[in-house]
Formats: sequence, structure tokens, C-alpha cells
Amino acid sequence: RIDGDRLWDSLMDMARIGPGVAGGNNRQTLTDEDSEGRHLFAAWCKDAGMTMGVDEIGNMFARREGTDPDALPVYVGSHLDTQPTGGKYDGVLGVLGGLELIRTMNDLDIKTKHPIVVVNWTNEEGTRFAPAMLASGVFAGKHDLDWANDRVDAQGKRFGDELERIGWKGDEPVGDRKMHALFELHIEQGPILEAEGKDIGVVTHGQGLRWIECTVTGKESHTGSTPMSMRKNAGRGLALITELVHEIAMKNQPNAVGAIGHIDVYPNSRNIIPGKVVFTIDMRTHLLDKLNGMVDELMARAPALCADIEVEFSAEIVGQFDPPAFDEGCVAAVRQAAERLGYSHMDIVSGAGHDACWINDLYPTAMVMCPCVDGLSHNEAEEITKDWAKAGADVLLHAVLETAEV
Amino acid sequence: RIDGDRLWDSLMDMARIGPGVAGGNNRQTLTDEDSEGRHLFAAWCKDAGMTMGVDEIGNMFARREGTDPDALPVYVGSHLDTQPTGGKYDGVLGVLGGLELIRTMNDLDIKTKHPIVVVNWTNEEGTRFAPAMLASGVFAGKHDLDWANDRVDAQGKRFGDELERIGWKGDEPVGDRKMHALFELHIEQGPILEAEGKDIGVVTHGQGLRWIECTVTGKESHTGSTPMSMRKNAGRGLALITELVHEIAMKNQPNAVGAIGHIDVYPNSRNIIPGKVVFTIDMRTHLLDKLNGMVDELMARAPALCADIEVEFSAEIVGQFDPPAFDEGCVAAVRQAAERLGYSHMDIVSGAGHDACWINDLYPTAMVMCPCVDGLSHNEAEEITKDWAKAGADVLLHAVLETAEV
Ligand SMILES: NC(=O)NCCC(=O)O
Ligand SMILES: NC(=O)NCCC(=O)O
Repeated sequence: RIDGDRLWDSLMDMARIGPGVAGGNNRQTLTDEDSEGRHLFAAWCKDAGMTMGVDEIGNMFARREGTDPDALPVYVGSHLDTQPTGGKYDGVLGVLGGLELIRTMNDLDIKTKHPIVVVNWTNEEGTRFAPAMLASGVFAGKHDLDWANDRVDAQGKRFGDELERIGWKGDEPVGDRKMHALFELHIEQGPILEAEGKDIGVVTHGQGLRWIECTVTGKESHTGSTPMSMRKNAGRGLALITELVHEIAMKNQPNAVGAIGHIDVYPNSRNIIPGKVVFTIDMRTHLLDKLNGMVDELMARAPALCADIEVEFSAEIVGQFDPPAFDEGCVAAVRQAAERLGYSHMDIVSGAGHDACWINDLYPTAMVMCPCVDGLSHNEAEEITKDWAKAGADVLLHAVLETAEV
Repeated sequence: RIDGDRLWDSLMDMARIGPGVAGGNNRQTLTDEDSEGRHLFAAWCKDAGMTMGVDEIGNMFARREGTDPDALPVYVGSHLDTQPTGGKYDGVLGVLGGLELIRTMNDLDIKTKHPIVVVNWTNEEGTRFAPAMLASGVFAGKHDLDWANDRVDAQGKRFGDELERIGWKGDEPVGDRKMHALFELHIEQGPILEAEGKDIGVVTHGQGLRWIECTVTGKESHTGSTPMSMRKNAGRGLALITELVHEIAMKNQPNAVGAIGHIDVYPNSRNIIPGKVVFTIDMRTHLLDKLNGMVDELMARAPALCADIEVEFSAEIVGQFDPPAFDEGCVAAVRQAAERLGYSHMDIVSGAGHDACWINDLYPTAMVMCPCVDGLSHNEAEEITKDWAKAGADVLLHAVLETAEV
């Protein structure tokens, strides 16, 4: 079993880097804080006797050797970047849980046939640079490296430039590594495990996602002197589509969600009718046909809603993945580990996207989930208990040992 | 008559300072560009033989002496600050029209009994620091100077600090000056004069305004893993209130308007359900009872709309003025000037707020309006013709000469 206190202390040490304003974290990808967090993780890996490789998109791979020089490594990990108002565990638990597993193996002098690599994927959150899971997506061949480097943030800064600026552009070609398997430990970010009183979620599937960046174009004009009949108010387009997204999600219940989290209004002046609003719709469900149906309905109805109020609608997909089904063997290894250790568990569908979803297309992959308080995540108040963290890392350890062959 | 070419050249010279991105201007209040525009205006005033006074809130007063040392001055002017995506004429025409009037009087060696003062009011637009017409409001005793200095922009910068930074904090106590009368020339910013084919609008009244800054509070959470039933989506509150504002404005037709121009979403991340949205409603009409009724209806219905979707609503008035009725004598002077000069004219209600509306509470005041193309303003594409500018400044000249007693 892993050392729950040591894991918790590391989580708290990492949380000191890029503190938020309400007890959580703001350690967005490719910021100075991201760099500082990476340095701390790298130092810990070195102390644990691992060697570090960094690829051209900044993914970090800390390796503990195995006994068989020909055996492919088992990968574990997640991400250290956070939302602008994020929690201390989303992603971080998976990386530091992986590190804790190595520390425990060192303490107990456990050797495995397969090497074990702890990975920190770059830009999982996708807030600063869309889409989410960008670097694991490039690794898995879903996106082009040049395209990723050209992604820009709201200030117009390029992903590639920011990666160089913070000093974490490595020289390893992205995606060159082969894997025996990959396991990702993550908090649930939803309410189900806590409500069901289970320690462990055995993740069998994930939701698919579509991020649809919409632009509604009206006409900037004076809020006071422009008669109602002459207005082309882009803000009303946003309003109608906000409610349309909600309606589509509700009529696809159960197991479908939709909302708009990102909204930029131009020119954003109290006495100018918005001439343009840019916003991103997030729609998800674990059934591919339903997901496509939701997007189709949106695309069919939004332009007409906008035309009715004399504004124009255009849309572009800026992030997408289909619902993943994880590897049966790896999923079974997680389930058996929970069983063997005596933790209560249930099968679960991941509501969020994860780097493991991309890797799952290439190599046998599975995920371990632990509960989080009130299902709250992407909020500084995100919270878990030390026991939940320990249970998740214990299960991760046993699933990995099983797969890496002691 | 004034020199239309000279007026136009000055307008174009001023428009070179703080150019926009689409042919208009971004010369927001208390920016370096605002300071540069003020220096150019001050230099022109000096060349025209005037003396400059600046008060503690940065209002600039350029004075041409009269023949009677005891006579109070006649004021003319408007503002040189612009919207972030503003036009070249909104405000600027009134200041440079006033300057042109002095230049013409100098050329023709016209003396008046009353001194004439050309004024540039600080922060008329109110975009960077709410409310609009801030400095004329302090001058008129509507706001406290300390309160004005404490207004902050979206970056958290204080009005008072920014005024000192750009070097335009003067030493004259605000509001100390007495006026014989005040005239403001301004573009209509609406479509009526152009549609009616009139050169001149004789402004008899203005619309009253309420700026209601609303905060809708929900709960930040993950767009993927938070079930629909557990969401508190502040963005939906914005959507419902956007449509409520529109509905209230429509049912108070004719002569009532309402929209939301300013919207800030927190934390504004693609995969976080908005936990908070702050936005400003702008409602106007020239009938006080109707205006109050519109606000009352909003305040009565918005909290319930929000409660229905489990978000909270709160609101604060951040800008307001009641519908002004201008001084009958000054209005008559404008009407007679247009008549005498042979310009077509009509009585009109100002859709926008103006510095003259505040001064009107203290001293006899009136406004002259000229048409603008397609009624478009608060847009970089705002346009007027040289003939319209000339007609407006001619009428201003004659109304002022009449009032200042040649
Ligand atoms: N786990 C997580 O929150 N990832 C970000 C991508 C997503 O929005 O699902
Ligand atoms: N004239 C003008 O646009 N003033 C700004 C104040 C307002 O919004 O009416």
C-alpha cells in the first residue's frame, strides 16, 4: 500500500505553486507557474531515482527501469496544469499518485519486468489554448504538432512561443514512445461515487465531446439613440443560443450535458449594442449517435434563431473526441485491484475528457477514479479526502504492478 | 459663417490621435491618447489667443475675453474622449466646432459682451469608468469628487490615479465656475434627421437613462461531469435577462430602448459552467414615469427568473439621469439661428446622454444636432458630411453670438 500522508503532503506542496484566490489553484498551462510546478515534479522524480525525458510539446516522462530491457513501459500519470479557477486535485492527483507509486516501490524494493513511466501531459485543461488534452492528442496523432504550436490564447500568444518561453520544449519527437499500457488516476469531478458511497470508480467508458466556437455578428451602435427597430444586437443571439443548448441537453436526458462557459462580447461597452459575441458551446454524452444528433440539432436551429433577430451565426468545431471505451484487460486489472484491496467500487462513465482517452486509441488503457466532495470540480473549492486519495493510489499501484509484472 | 474646411481639417487632425482598427477612434478617457488629444486642443486654443484653465477632474476651459468684465461667460463644447470602437465626430465635433467659432470670430474681429469659453469635459463616454458624463456630473454637483476619483476601470485602475498619470489634473476646484449659458453641438447618433432630410436638430428634450449593473451568481463546476440537475448556470441568468430587457423595451414602444452592452463572464473557461456573470443593462426613454416603470418591471421580474433556474440576482444602479428639458430661451436661440441661416431644421429629442444634460440643471442650456449617416454611432464607421458639420457649427456660432451679445 502507498503512503497516504506522503502523497497528501506532495499534493499540498504542489498546490502552493500558482495559488488561486479562493483556496484552489491558477496554474494554467505554459505560464510561469506551470514551469515552476514542472521543476518541482522533476526534482521529486530525480530524488526517486528516475530519469526524465521531455518531448517537443513539453510532455514530461519520468522513467523507472524494469528488469527486462526489451519490455515496453507501463505509463501512469495525468496533468499538472489547472483551470484559471481550478482545484488542487484535478490532474495533479494522477501525476503525484504515479510518483507515490514509484516512491512506494522504492521503499519496498519492488522490481518490475516492465519499466514504469510517470507522465505529465501538457495543456490538458484547454482553457488557455483550446482544445483540451492538446499534447496527448498530438502524441496520439489526433492533431498536428505545427497546428498545436499555432494555437493562440486570448492575448494572441502562440502555444509554441509560450512553451519555449517557459523553457519546457524538449527535443524528443512527440509520439515516438511505445507503451505496454497506460493507467490514469483522476478525481471523478462528478457526484456519483460520493452519492453511492464507493471508494473507487472503475472507468469503463467516457463521454464524447464537441466544443463549438460560435460567432454571432450584429452591428455595433448606440444603446441610447438607436431605435429598437434598427438594432442588430449580437447579445440576443447569445441569449437565444444559451437557451437552445440547454433545451437540447435536457431533451437528450439522461446522460447528456450542454452549456456555454466561454463568452467574449465586443466591444463590451455599457453604451454600445454588442456588434459581435464569440462563445464556445460544450456538449457531451457517452453515446456517439446522440452526441452527433445534439450537434446536428444545434447547427440546424441556431442560424434561423439568429436570422430572426437579424444577426448572423457562424460556428467552428474547436475541440472534439468521440466516446471512448477503455481496454477490457486494463479495466479488469483496476477492478481486481480494488477487489483485492477491499475497497468498495463501481463501474462508471467519465464525464470529463482525459489524456487517457486519446492514448486509449493506441495502447491498452484504463482509468481509476476517486470521489470528490459534492461532485464539484473546475472550482477552487474542489475537495477530496486523504482516504479517497490513498484508496485511488493504492488501486493504481496494484493495477500497475499486475500489468508491469513484478 | 464658419470655415467648413478648417473645421473639417481639425476634425481629421484630431482623428489621427488614438486611431481605431476600422477607420474610427479608440481614444478612451485618461489614456495616453486622451492626453495627446488634449495637448493638441490646448495648442490650438493658445494659437487662437485663448487662456486655458483646468479643474481638478481634468475639465479644460479655454477662454476668449468679452468686453464687459462683469459678464458671465457663454460656454460651448463637448468631449474629446471616445468609445473603444468609436467614431471621429461623437463629442469631437462639439469641442472643435466651439474652437472654430472662436477662430471665425477672430478672423472677423467680432467682439462679444460676454466672454466665451470652449470646454472639453473629461470622461463623457463612461466606458472605461462608469458612469458616462462623469466630470460634468461632478461639476453639476451630481457626484462627489472623491467618489469619481475612486471609480475603477476593468483593470482595477483608479480614475484619480489615471488622471494624475496622464498629467491633466488641474488645480481649479470643480464646479466653481458660473455660466451665463451653455450650448453643445453634437451629432444626432440616431437616424431621424437624415431620414427627415433636415440639416439641424433643435434639441428640446433628452432621454433619461438608467444603467443597472447586475450580478448573477451560480456555481462554477465542470461542464462535462456535472449532471444537468446539479447545475447553477449563471450564463442562463444572463440569457433570460437579455430577453427580459428586450421584452420590456418593446412593450414600452414607441420611444423606449433597452439592451445589455457590457458582459463579463467568470471564470470564462470553455469547460467551466459560469459561476458569475456581471453585466450592465442600459434602459432609456424621455418620459420619467415610463423610465421608472421599466426599471420597476425589471427589478420585479429578474430575481424570480433567476430563482427559477437556481441562480441569484443582484443589481446596482451605476449611472442615471432623468429626462432633461432644455432652456426655452436657449432652444429658441438655436431655432432662430437655423431659421436665419436658412438651414432646414426640426425639434428633436436626444437619444444619448450629453454633458449639456447635467449643466442644464444649473444654467440655461441647449443643444444643436447635425445628422449622421444611417444613424450610426458608437461604431468606428460613424460618418457625417462636411456640409452637416458646417451647418451645425454655423448655427452654434449664431446662437452663441446672440446669447453672448455682440
Ligand atoms: N478532466 C478534465 O477536466 N479535463 C478537461 C477536459 C474536459 O473538459 O473534460
Ligand atoms: N453622446 C454619448 O454617446 N454619450 C455617452 C453617454 C450615453 O450613453 O448616452
